[in-house]
Amino acid sequence: MRATVIYGAGDVRVENVPDPALKEPTDAVVRVLRSCICGSDLWPYKSKPASDAGERIGHEFLGVVEEVGSEVSGLKSGDVVVAPFVWADNTCDFCSEGLHTSCRHGGFWGQEGVDGAQGEAVRVPQAQGTLVKLPVGEDSELLPSLLTLADVFPTGHHCAVTAGVNPRTTVTVIGDGAVGLSAVLAARRLGAERIVLMGRHTERTELGREFGATDVVAERGEEGIAKVRDLTGGDGTHTVLECVGTKQALEMALGVARDGGVVSRVGVPQYEEGPVGPDMFLRNITLTGGVAPARAYIEELLPDVLDGKIEPGRVFDRTISLDEVPDGYRAMADREALKVLIKP
Amino acid sequence: MRATVIYGAGDVRVENVPDPALKEPTDAVVRVLRSCICGSDLWPYKSKPASDAGERIGHEFLGVVEEVGSEVSGLKSGDVVVAPFVWADNTCDFCSEGLHTSCRHGGFWGQEGVDGAQGEAVRVPQAQGTLVKLPVGEDSELLPSLLTLADVFPTGHHCAVTAGVNPRTTVTVIGDGAVGLSAVLAARRLGAERIVLMGRHTERTELGREFGATDVVAERGEEGIAKVRDLTGGDGTHTVLECVGTKQALEMALGVARDGGVVSRVGVPQYEEGPVGPDMFLRNITLTGGVAPARAYIEELLPDVLDGKIEPGRVFDRTISLDEVPDGYRAMADREALKVLIKP
Repeated sequence: MRATVIYGAGDVRVENVPDPALKEPTDAVVRVLRSCICGSDLWPYKSKPASDAGERIGHEFLGVVEEVGSEVSGLKSGDVVVAPFVWADNTCDFCSEGLHTSCRHGGFWGQEGVDGAQGEAVRVPQAQGTLVKLPVGEDSELLPSLLTLADVFPTGHHCAVTAGVNPRTTVTVIGDGAVGLSAVLAARRLGAERIVLMGRHTERTELGREFGATDVVAERGEEGIAKVRDLTGGDGTHTVLECVGTKQALEMALGVARDGGVVSRVGVPQYEEGPVGPDMFLRNITLTGGVAPARAYIEELLPDVLDGKIEPGRVFDRTISLDEVPDGYRAMADREALKVLIKP
Repeated sequence: MRATVIYGAGDVRVENVPDPALKEPTDAVVRVLRSCICGSDLWPYKSKPASDAGERIGHEFLGVVEEVGSEVSGLKSGDVVVAPFVWADNTCDFCSEGLHTSCRHGGFWGQEGVDGAQGEAVRVPQAQGTLVKLPVGEDSELLPSLLTLADVFPTGHHCAVTAGVNPRTTVTVIGDGAVGLSAVLAARRLGAERIVLMGRHTERTELGREFGATDVVAERGEEGIAKVRDLTGGDGTHTVLECVGTKQALEMALGVARDGGVVSRVGVPQYEEGPVGPDMFLRNITLTGGVAPARAYIEELLPDVLDGKIEPGRVFDRTISLDEVPDGYRAMADREALKVLIKP
C-alpha cells in the first residue's frame, strides 16, 4: 500500500510500504477513509534532522474495519470507526480516569513499528479500546467533522475542560489555527459567553467568530495583552486556552489571565523552560492542560456532531489525495491552508 | 515603640519607631501579643542589598485592638484578633472569590508606609476586613496555634486545597520547614491517608510523622524522585505540595507527580523560569498554588484549633523577646530553630 514517510525537515514522501496485517490478537486492520495533517506534524516538518531511515507519520484517521484479531470484540469487518491520536487499551487505571494518553499499554501512531495515519490502511493496536464505532456510512457528509474527533476537536475541548470553562468564566483563546478555533467552539459549547480570540489571519478569525468568539484581538505580545486587558476592565480573563505551543504564546497567556485564573495549554511546548516565577505565583495563576486524551471525550462529543449541532469539520479548507500529501504539508506550513483533509 | 527594621542581608535591628496611630477611618491600632519569623523573611535576610533606609519587617501577628477608626464596625478596643499576612477589605470581587491576596484595596505589611508585624504595635489598614476576632483571652495557651492562622497553617492548607487533596489522593510534601509540616497537617486534616514527606532534618520529619506523614524520604534530586516512585509502584503521587520555593524543589515536585497529577507550590519562587516543557505536558501535570489568601481560610480552620483537634503551633520551637529578634533570624537561618515565636 501507499503511505506517508518523513525523512527530515521539508522532506515528506508518499511511498510503497508493506500492507498492514494483524500481529497481535488485540489488533485490527482499518482501511483509511479520511486522514489529515495536524499542526503538530509541522514541527518535524520544520525541524526534523535529515535521515535515510524515514518514519511513518500522521495520527488522525477514520476508516473501515477490514479485519480484527481474535481478542477484539464489539468490532467487525465493515464497521466505520474513528481512532483517537493515541492508541490505548481503555481499561487500565489511567484510561479509567480519562487519561488515555498515559495508558499503561498504549502509544503513539508512527512510532515503534506502529503505522502512521497518512496512508491507505493502518494496523491498530489495542483495537477494542482504541476504536470508536460511528453510526454512519462510508459516504457520509459528516466524515470531516467526525474525523476531527480523532484529535483537533477533543484537543480544543480538553483545553476548555481543564481550564474550567463554564457559563460564568470569561475566556481568551490564543491562536487561530485549527486547534484554537476548535477551542473556541468547545468553549462556546460549554456555555462561555465571552470569548476573546487572539489571532491575526482574518479568514481564520472570521470562522472563529462563527464558532463563538465575541472579540478578536490581532495584536501580539505586550500590545496584545494590553488589548485583552482593555476588553476586560483591566483584569484579563478567568480562563486562557493556549493553542500554539511557543514560549511567546505562553507568556501572552499568563499576561492575559485574571488573578486566580487558569492557563490551559494544548499546543506541544516548543520550550523546555517557561516563565512560571513570582508574577504567576503572586497572582495565583494555574498552568494546566497537556496532550489531550481524545479517546476520553469521543462518546461525549459524538452526539453533537451527529446531530449537526456543531460542525468542527469546518476547520478543513482543503481536500487532497494521498499523493498530494507533500504539497499539503507545504500548504499548511506556508499558511496557505488552515487544515488539510486527505482522501486516500 | 520598638519594632524590627531590616537594613540588608544579615542586618536586622530592633529600633525605636513612631507609635502607630489611626490614619484612615478604616484603620485600627493593634497591640501585638505574639508575632513570629517566617521562612519567607529569610530571603531578604539572606540577600537584601544593604541600604541606609531600613524597612519594617514581619507579617504574622495576633494582638489586642487598642483603637478603631470611625468606619470600622464589629471590632472594639480589647478584642483579641489575628491578622492574615496580607491585609484586605474582604468585600471586593477578588475577596468574595476567596482571593484576598489580590484584593483591590489590600497590600502587604511593611510596605508603603504600613507597619511590619515584628514590633510592639501595628496600624492595620482595612481593619474590618482584615482582622478576625478570636474568642480567647490574652493569656490563652492557644495563642501559638492561633498565631499560625496568620500565615503558616493557611499556607499549608492552601497548598493542599489547590492541589485537590482528598481521602483518595496520595500526597508528597516537599520540604520539612514550618510550611511543609503545616502542609502535612492540612493534608491529613483533608483526609489524605498516604503522605510522603521529603525532608532530611530528623527532628522536623519526626514532627511531620506526628502531623500525619506516613513515609519520610530524606534523599533529594533524582535519588529522592526514585525513592518516592519506589514507594508508589513507580507512579508517583496524585498531589505534590511544594513548600520550599527553589527550582530544585519544583523539579523534584514534577518528578514525583503521577501522570495527570497536580503540583501545588506555596514557597515564594526563587526562580524566574521553571521546567514546564514537554515532559510536564505529555504527562498532563498541573502547576497551581501561589501566595496563600490566608484570610479566606481562617474561619474554616479556627474551630479545629480552638477544639484542640489540631495543634499547628507545634511548629514553634523557640520563643524570644522583641530585643532578641536579630538572633531569632540568625537561629532560623542557621536551621538551629524551626520557627521562632516573638513575645514583645
